[in-house]
Amino acid sequence: MKILQKVAKEVQEATKVRLHGRNVERLLSAVLVTGDFWKIVDLSDLPVPAASEIVKRLVSEGILFIDDQENIRLTQKGVDLVNELGISPAQDYTCGACEGRGYPFYADKELYRTFVELAKDRPKAIRDYDQGSVTPETTVSRVLFLDSRGDLRGKDIIVMGAEDDLTGLAVALTRKARRVLVIDIDKRLIDFDNRIFKELGIDNAEAMVWDLRNPFPDDILGQFEVFITDPPETFAAFRAFIGRGIATLKEEGCAGYFGLTLRDSSIFRWKEFQEILINEYCVVITDIVQDFNHYMNWDYHPETRAAQIAPVKKNPTDIWYRSAWYRIETLPGFKRWNDPISDEVFYLDEEGSTT
Amino acid sequence: MKILQKVAKEVQEATKVRLHGRNVERLLSAVLVTGDFWKIVDLSDLPVPAASEIVKRLVSEGILFIDDQENIRLTQKGVDLVNELGISPAQDYTCGACEGRGYPFYADKELYRTFVELAKDRPKAIRDYDQGSVTPETTVSRVLFLDSRGDLRGKDIIVMGAEDDLTGLAVALTRKARRVLVIDIDKRLIDFDNRIFKELGIDNAEAMVWDLRNPFPDDILGQFEVFITDPPETFAAFRAFIGRGIATLKEEGCAGYFGLTLRDSSIFRWKEFQEILINEYCVVITDIVQDFNHYMNWDYHPETRAAQIAPVKKNPTDIWYRSAWYRIETLPGFKRWNDPISDEVFYLDEEGSTT
Repeated sequence: MKILQKVAKEVQEATKVRLHGRNVERLLSAVLVTGDFWKIVDLSDLPVPAASEIVKRLVSEGILFIDDQENIRLTQKGVDLVNELGISPAQDYTCGACEGRGYPFYADKELYRTFVELAKDRPKAIRDYDQGSVTPETTVSRVLFLDSRGDLRGKDIIVMGAEDDLTGLAVALTRKARRVLVIDIDKRLIDFDNRIFKELGIDNAEAMVWDLRNPFPDDILGQFEVFITDPPETFAAFRAFIGRGIATLKEEGCAGYFGLTLRDSSIFRWKEFQEILINEYCVVITDIVQDFNHYMNWDYHPETRAAQIAPVKKNPTDIWYRSAWYRIETLPGFKRWNDPISDEVFYLDEEGSTT
Repeated sequence: MKILQKVAKEVQEATKVRLHGRNVERLLSAVLVTGDFWKIVDLSDLPVPAASEIVKRLVSEGILFIDDQENIRLTQKGVDLVNELGISPAQDYTCGACEGRGYPFYADKELYRTFVELAKDRPKAIRDYDQGSVTPETTVSRVLFLDSRGDLRGKDIIVMGAEDDLTGLAVALTRKARRVLVIDIDKRLIDFDNRIFKELGIDNAEAMVWDLRNPFPDDILGQFEVFITDPPETFAAFRAFIGRGIATLKEEGCAGYFGLTLRDSSIFRWKEFQEILINEYCVVITDIVQDFNHYMNWDYHPETRAAQIAPVKKNPTDIWYRSAWYRIETLPGFKRWNDPISDEVFYLDEEGSTT
């Protein structure tokens, strides 16, 4: 395995994204089933800068080559290496019914249909705020997940800084929550939600413009039983979205939901996020469902760092960006974090690239 | 909500199982959909001693009563309370295809069929070793989960102290691993596996009697890429099964799988387990899939503490005991724990009851 560890080390030095040898192995497993760079990133669960640099190094080692269709393929030397190391093609037994989430979106067809009809007029994802919407199937499954955990009916719910997914809208559409507060930095989304709440006579829901870099006022702190969010994977954003999300919770036994991806964060950083959750915020993790959130491709992809550093020019043709769905629960002694933060390194750092 | 918190506090004092008010709320949500005590335990995700004591307290408060069919039901006072607090019936949108696991067992029908045929002659679960087998669907889904994460093909795999589930057998049946070592304290299971390995000519798998209270010898430490286990939920067993599991792993980027339940452990203890994983063993948690493992009822149920402290005499008629499926990954600096442990409080403590 020495070659894999050598490549991991070189890529780590070049990109500052932490890696281990098995990350390189996993990328080779992906190349055995697809030549598409974006599918390779998806299957190997790696930040784009790392996956891109691994491909480039393996090309210069004569293990991979890029054919004239921009497919990434093994050379004869690569085939020999893969056979020698016993590396097998990546397998995928994900459930076709629930898309691996455990809760199928079609369990509430009426909610799904209503949501899709309303979402067709949604504001387009824009780059300024790191937007990229999840599929309607993802959004509806999030609501069914909450409902199955007793985190929907009769609850006060805040949906924070992730309304490009329209999760707040979907929660409100159920009319099962006691109160829904949607906050987002993007006025287009806030206006969109408020217009629908008004048109449909949903009077327990409201949407409000808010920049999560600022501390919450007292009328939001400690007022909710459930928060939902979807932060960029920088430490500053993790605190602004999740620390502040916890600060909105009333008491012990309340729940927080958020997405965390391995496409803009290494598994090493996940451990640091988990240390913050467990040691600093004093909450417990109850669920981590990999690949729960499926993100639709965004129009501004060609402008992103991801597109610029990719080893190929070809754009993604299918869903390749996914994130895990975390649920946390507050326990006695949990900490509310609500400091102001500067906007340095808020959306993007060395492991991120899709903003 | 004051009544819920009061009951939680009283039950905590009586049972020493830590609780919060929402645990009591969740139990009432369960009573709104079933009168069966074991289904109520299942839906409310509580240790049996806590669920049992909550029912007893709510009966003495005049909120619940037990009818002559031994069903647990709300009194008029209970109905009024539930309405006043806005408590809703527990919902369940679990995927019917994969049973909520994300990977459906029928994705490999041949493995499933072979496994079921062989397992029909399995040794019966006995109480001495806290045994209780998972369903064949669970066992096969575990294997598909490993395969989907690149943790099966060409890997050296150890299955530790959980062979009542025959997971080691199922892994070996795929013939995809490089090496499979099964260890268990129960000689009946070891003989069963070794006989099948011999009959089917599976020569890369072996089974060996081992008591996990004893430290591993050098020829097991640091030899594997993947461990699988399913500990009792005491701290001593957690270390013996999971600390020692991590000690078998070769290097960074290796994986461990295990079940942890909320039927024999509170969510408070889960947080302590997570502190040990993150801070002491220095691994990262990559997956927590709730209710992944479904346990078949065991013949010795009437002899268990669970049966003795239950508020009803009626035995379970359906699956009620489930556990979450954890996956962890080693990172640089991970710690191998391999100390000897005494057998005090190994199988059972204040939160456990099903041994």
